[in-house]
Amino acid sequence: MKDHTLKLGLVQMACTADIARNMQQAYAQAEALAKQGARLICLPELYRSLYFCQTLDATHFALAEAADGPSYQLFRQLAVQYKVSLIIPIFEEPTAGLYFNSAVIINETGAHLGTYRKQHIPHDPGFEEKYYFTPGDGGYRVWRTEAADFGTLICWDQWYPEAARLTALQGAQILFYPTAIGYSAGEPAEEGAAQLDAWVTVQRSHAIANNVFVVAVNRVGTEGGTRFWGNSFVANPLGKVLAHADETEQNLLVEIDLAEIRYYRQWWPFLRDRRIDTYAGITRRWGTGE
Amino acid sequence: MKDHTLKLGLVQMACTADIARNMQQAYAQAEALAKQGARLICLPELYRSLYFCQTLDATHFALAEAADGPSYQLFRQLAVQYKVSLIIPIFEEPTAGLYFNSAVIINETGAHLGTYRKQHIPHDPGFEEKYYFTPGDGGYRVWRTEAADFGTLICWDQWYPEAARLTALQGAQILFYPTAIGYSAGEPAEEGAAQLDAWVTVQRSHAIANNVFVVAVNRVGTEGGTRFWGNSFVANPLGKVLAHADETEQNLLVEIDLAEIRYYRQWWPFLRDRRIDTYAGITRRWGTGE
Repeated sequence: MKDHTLKLGLVQMACTADIARNMQQAYAQAEALAKQGARLICLPELYRSLYFCQTLDATHFALAEAADGPSYQLFRQLAVQYKVSLIIPIFEEPTAGLYFNSAVIINETGAHLGTYRKQHIPHDPGFEEKYYFTPGDGGYRVWRTEAADFGTLICWDQWYPEAARLTALQGAQILFYPTAIGYSAGEPAEEGAAQLDAWVTVQRSHAIANNVFVVAVNRVGTEGGTRFWGNSFVANPLGKVLAHADETEQNLLVEIDLAEIRYYRQWWPFLRDRRIDTYAGITRRWGTGE
Repeated sequence: MKDHTLKLGLVQMACTADIARNMQQAYAQAEALAKQGARLICLPELYRSLYFCQTLDATHFALAEAADGPSYQLFRQLAVQYKVSLIIPIFEEPTAGLYFNSAVIINETGAHLGTYRKQHIPHDPGFEEKYYFTPGDGGYRVWRTEAADFGTLICWDQWYPEAARLTALQGAQILFYPTAIGYSAGEPAEEGAAQLDAWVTVQRSHAIANNVFVVAVNRVGTEGGTRFWGNSFVANPLGKVLAHADETEQNLLVEIDLAEIRYYRQWWPFLRDRRIDTYAGITRRWGTGE
């Protein structure tokens, strides 16, 4: 288990209809963070385009790319030049007609370690993802890099304690949540504030329950009826927020100490007492059964 | 699914070495809440005695009682008189040499609906529960009363999202957490504050992830090296804290609207998207396996 300190880099950005510009902007911010010493850098969900899931439009499938496509080809250069690892969320097309909401993992040598495919797909007004994305088929993964052993989940996954647990049980020391979430137009402000608070709280709880670091990276800006709320943050293994952004474009450079994981796990040894003999019902949709 | 409003009653109390006095005090407070209209009342964990798990002492087993013992016999009268349901945490002795940390559930007719036996047993300095209690063997249960369908978990259970999920999946609309937790003597104040915040946060997250109400009921007062931190609270199905206590003896009478469960579950339909086909690994202690 790694137990050193390292700096994380979070790119909180607004996205536009101009793909080249989004890629350039993301690259520039990631490079700035790398120059400041970030060893592990994460972009927001679907960073390369507008959040196109607000409508059902088959022409949007043209935005998709292969796991080793333009995003990987661009950021592998950054990885090699600065010896940083990156989490690059993409609209993934393994083949025509099959699409995932994914994140490409690049290590400090520029190698493509693998791709996480979002397991939990939302579908509600303004977030019609089930039209575009097949639920991920690759399971919950840990990625081992020089910087840290970490897992990636994506946005809607963040509401599911099962996803956090399954990733942590594989040895992830950090859970990254690239995200696209915001306020819906026409909703009362207090409802939006309560949703934001719930979003922060449930992710902090994954840090607490698993004694891992949690990193949420959201976009900002208004697109159609959604004002993406930013508020990217890093929580320590007791859920303490070490740094958080507001609702504007900004980078966060956050130093963490991986040794805190061991400290908190020895203080309150949750893993010791899991009643794994009683958890089989988690795989049921509803109700008891035996 | 019940969708009416009702008032919950939480008794946050200090406990003493005098069992009769603790019972009398708990009864008086529960009765006061019943008179104010509470229909569902919860006491703190092991309300009948000091928190005896600070030391290993076989004479403490004399504090145990049967599920239909003195606590049930006392509070069934309250249930009948005021038509209230109650959650009465006890040190349970099914037979000599076998002990559980339990909660007796009494419905509005005074019937003993059943007993929840704490599944996750802590053991750390000042909380040496593995000496006294066998891990619960009764599973996660829902109790159906006129007031609401609810589940009870106990203290250390609160750190485990699996316990909350399994109880909610059976139809619990409210999760009760009778508790005995506090600050440890000699710890820095900021560490204690962070622990309290983590305790609130992880329980609020069970409300959010399952869209249920969560009710935490703690004791207060200093016993040996622990100052029990009170801070009993009720959270709604989006994790909003509806009411919370400070660190002194007090009752909370909190009106909740069970219809909020349906509202939030339809707004963000988490249950729809659980990837139950991917959760089997939850029953593993550590690592992947396939």
